[in-house]
Amino acid sequence: MKILAIDEQTVPLAAPMRNASVAYDTMTASALAVVTDCVMNGERVVGYAFDSIGRYGKGGLLRDRFIPRLLAASPGALLDARGLIDPDAAVAALMENEKDGGHGERPGAVGLIDAALWDLRAKLEARPLWRVLAERAGRRAPGQAHAFDVYGSCGHFRPGRGTAELDGLAREVQAARSAGFSTIKIKLGGSNIDDDLARTRVALAAAEGARVAVDVNGKLDAAIESAWLQAMARLDVAWVEEPASPLDFLRLSKIAAGTPLPLATGENLFSLDDARNLLRYGGLRPDRDLIQIDISLSYGVGEYLHILAEFEAAGWKRAAFVPHAGHLFAAQAVAGLGLGMHESASDVSLPFGGLWDGAAIATGRAAACEAPGVGFELKNSLFQWLKPLVTRDRDSASVASINAG
Amino acid sequence: MKILAIDEQTVPLAAPMRNASVAYDTMTASALAVVTDCVMNGERVVGYAFDSIGRYGKGGLLRDRFIPRLLAASPGALLDARGLIDPDAAVAALMENEKDGGHGERPGAVGLIDAALWDLRAKLEARPLWRVLAERAGRRAPGQAHAFDVYGSCGHFRPGRGTAELDGLAREVQAARSAGFSTIKIKLGGSNIDDDLARTRVALAAAEGARVAVDVNGKLDAAIESAWLQAMARLDVAWVEEPASPLDFLRLSKIAAGTPLPLATGENLFSLDDARNLLRYGGLRPDRDLIQIDISLSYGVGEYLHILAEFEAAGWKRAAFVPHAGHLFAAQAVAGLGLGMHESASDVSLPFGGLWDGAAIATGRAAACEAPGVGFELKNSLFQWLKPLVTRDRDSASVASINAG
Repeated sequence: MKILAIDEQTVPLAAPMRNASVAYDTMTASALAVVTDCVMNGERVVGYAFDSIGRYGKGGLLRDRFIPRLLAASPGALLDARGLIDPDAAVAALMENEKDGGHGERPGAVGLIDAALWDLRAKLEARPLWRVLAERAGRRAPGQAHAFDVYGSCGHFRPGRGTAELDGLAREVQAARSAGFSTIKIKLGGSNIDDDLARTRVALAAAEGARVAVDVNGKLDAAIESAWLQAMARLDVAWVEEPASPLDFLRLSKIAAGTPLPLATGENLFSLDDARNLLRYGGLRPDRDLIQIDISLSYGVGEYLHILAEFEAAGWKRAAFVPHAGHLFAAQAVAGLGLGMHESASDVSLPFGGLWDGAAIATGRAAACEAPGVGFELKNSLFQWLKPLVTRDRDSASVASINAG
Repeated sequence: MKILAIDEQTVPLAAPMRNASVAYDTMTASALAVVTDCVMNGERVVGYAFDSIGRYGKGGLLRDRFIPRLLAASPGALLDARGLIDPDAAVAALMENEKDGGHGERPGAVGLIDAALWDLRAKLEARPLWRVLAERAGRRAPGQAHAFDVYGSCGHFRPGRGTAELDGLAREVQAARSAGFSTIKIKLGGSNIDDDLARTRVALAAAEGARVAVDVNGKLDAAIESAWLQAMARLDVAWVEEPASPLDFLRLSKIAAGTPLPLATGENLFSLDDARNLLRYGGLRPDRDLIQIDISLSYGVGEYLHILAEFEAAGWKRAAFVPHAGHLFAAQAVAGLGLGMHESASDVSLPFGGLWDGAAIATGRAAACEAPGVGFELKNSLFQWLKPLVTRDRDSASVASINAG
C-alpha cells in the first residue's frame, strides 16, 4: 500500500453561536483525505478525517510541515508487519525533528492525519474502526452488536435571539430529550449567577428528567465562584465543565476540594505532558470527575492510550474519559476503547452534529456502526465536505505534481 | 497611521547541525514586514520581525488566521492615545475568539506580529526599541550609552564532522572567547556521561577562563541523571539547560532539589499559563536559576511583562531572565527591560548570529544600538531576508488586493 496524496481543505463553519469563551462566526475546521493506490470492490481506498470544532482548521501546518513530511517518509516505514498502514509509525515520522513542549496547533494537525490513517486502516481491514481500535488497545471487542453511552451537547448562546434566548434554549433541550439523550449539556456564561441559574432551570424543566450538565468554558468569574458552585450543587447538575482556565491546575484543585459536584475538563489540553500535569496538580477525583481530552486534537490514538495508561495507573477508570469532539471518529474511539461517553452535538442537521444518518439514540445509548472505517460515508451532510477532496486523477505518475501542489 | 499590508515569507535555514532534540536541516523561520502609509525622511515606514529558531516558521497561521484578523481590525483600535501603533491592543485583537490553553504555534505567530509592531512603533518615535520598551515597562532608561550582558551560544553537533567533532567544538568556543564572550554555552547529548564530559572539558580548555554552560535540550537520560549532574557540578559549569522535558515540572523540581548547579529552562514554554506552572511546580530557586522564556514565541512583550510580574511577586529578580532567541529583538528587550543576559549565537556569519554589524562585545557586554527600532537594517545578512518583503507598490488603492493576496 502506498499513499498517493494527502489533500486538505479548510471548511468555514460560520455558525451563529457562541459560548462563554469564543464566537463561532469565523470558526474553521480542516477536512482531510489520504488517497492510496489501493482499490477495494472497485473503489479507491481513501482515509478521511474531519476536525474537532473550536480551535480553527490546521491547513497551514498541514501544508507547510506535516503533509510534506509524511509524503517524504519511506512508504515501508509507515506499514506494520502485516503490510497495513500503521498510524503510530506515521505519527513518529510526523514528529521527527519536533521539539518537546508547546502543544497547541501541532497536536491537532498530527491528530487529524492519525485519524485519517485509522479510517484508512479499518477500511483496508474491512472492519468498523471501533473493532480495530479495541484490538489496538488490547481489548476484547464484543462479537455482537455493541452500544455506547452518548450525551447531547447544545444550548449555545445565539446572539440574534434576544429576549427569545431562553425559549430557544428550552426548544434545543426538548429536542435533545426527544432524540433520546438522557444527559444534555448546555452553555453558561459564568459571570452572572442569576442569568446562569435561569438558563439551568429552563434546561432542567425542558429536560423532563434527563440530567443537565453545564459548561462555562473556563470563564467562571472568580468573584462569584463559591456562590455559583453552591447554586449549581443545589440544582444537582450532572457536572460543571471547565470551571477554571485549562492550565490553571491550582484553581481547579481548589474548586475540586470545595464542591461535591463532578467536574469535567481537559478539552484544551493537547498532550500527554499536559494531561499528566492535570493528573498531578489538578486535584481531580477519580470517583466522579470527567477527563475530556480530545483524541484528534492531541496527537491521536497512540498518545491517548498513553494518557489512559497514566490515569489508570493512578486509579482512574475508563468510564471517566469522555472525549471532547462530537464527531464520528470520537464515537468510534469511545465504542472501541471502552470510554465513558461520547459527546454528540444534538442538532443532527449540523455537519458535525449527531451520529451516522439514521442512527437512533435510546435512553442515552447508541449502537456502534458496522460499516468499515469511521463511517463518514454514512453521514451525508459531513461527507459532502470530504468527498470533493478526492476528485483528481490518482494514477501514481501524478504523485509528484500532487505532492508539490 | 494605517497598516497597508503585512507580508511574510518562510525562510529555509537548512543548517547542518543538531542538538540533543532536533536536527536543523529542514528548519524554517518566518520573516515578517508590516507596511504602513507613513513616510519618514522620504522612506516608507516598515516594521520588521524575524522568527526565533527551533520551532519552524509560522507562515500557515500567519496567513490563515492572524494577518487577516489584524487587517480586519479597525485601524483606530490599534492605536494608543498619541495615535501611535499599540502592540498590546493589536495582540488583543489577534486573540479575539481564541480559546484559552494550547500554547504552541499560536504564541509564536502572535509574538512575531507583536515584535514587528514594536519595531514599527520605535521607528515612528525615532527611538531605539530598548528605550521604548523601558518606557513601556515603567523603567527609567539611561540617558547615555547603555550596555547589557550577553553570552555566546555555540557548540552544536555537526553530523558531518566525525572524529574532528571535538576539534571543531574547540574552535567554536575559542572563536566565541576571542569575540569577547565571557560565558559560552555548548550542546551536550545527555545520554552518555563520558561523551558529555569530554565535550565539556574541551570547551572549558578552549574557553580560557570564560564560563561554560551546557544544554541537553530536555534529553538528559533519567538513568544517568544523578551521576551526570554530579560530574557537571565537579566541572563547575555555569548552568545546566533543560535537564528535564519542558513540561515535566515534577522531574525538574527533583533535579533542582538535588544539585547545587544553576538550572536554566523555559524556552519551550510559550505563555503566562505555562510560565506560572513552572513557577508553581518547577521547584526552581530564585537565587541561582535562569528563566529562558522566549518573548516573541510567547505572545510578545505584553505577555512577557505579565510573566516578569508574577515571578517578581514570588521573589525573583530580572537578572534571572535570559530569553531564548538570539535575535536582535531579544537583545533590545534585554537592554530595555533590564533582564539578565542576551543569548547570542556566537557565529556572526549566521543571519541569526551575533548582533548589529560591527557591534563589539567586551568582557561579556555589548552596547545597546542607538538606531531607531530594532536595527535590522544594521545587520546585512539578516536584512537581506526582510528587505525583499517590501517591494510592491504600496499606495492605499492596492490595499484590498494585497490583503486578499
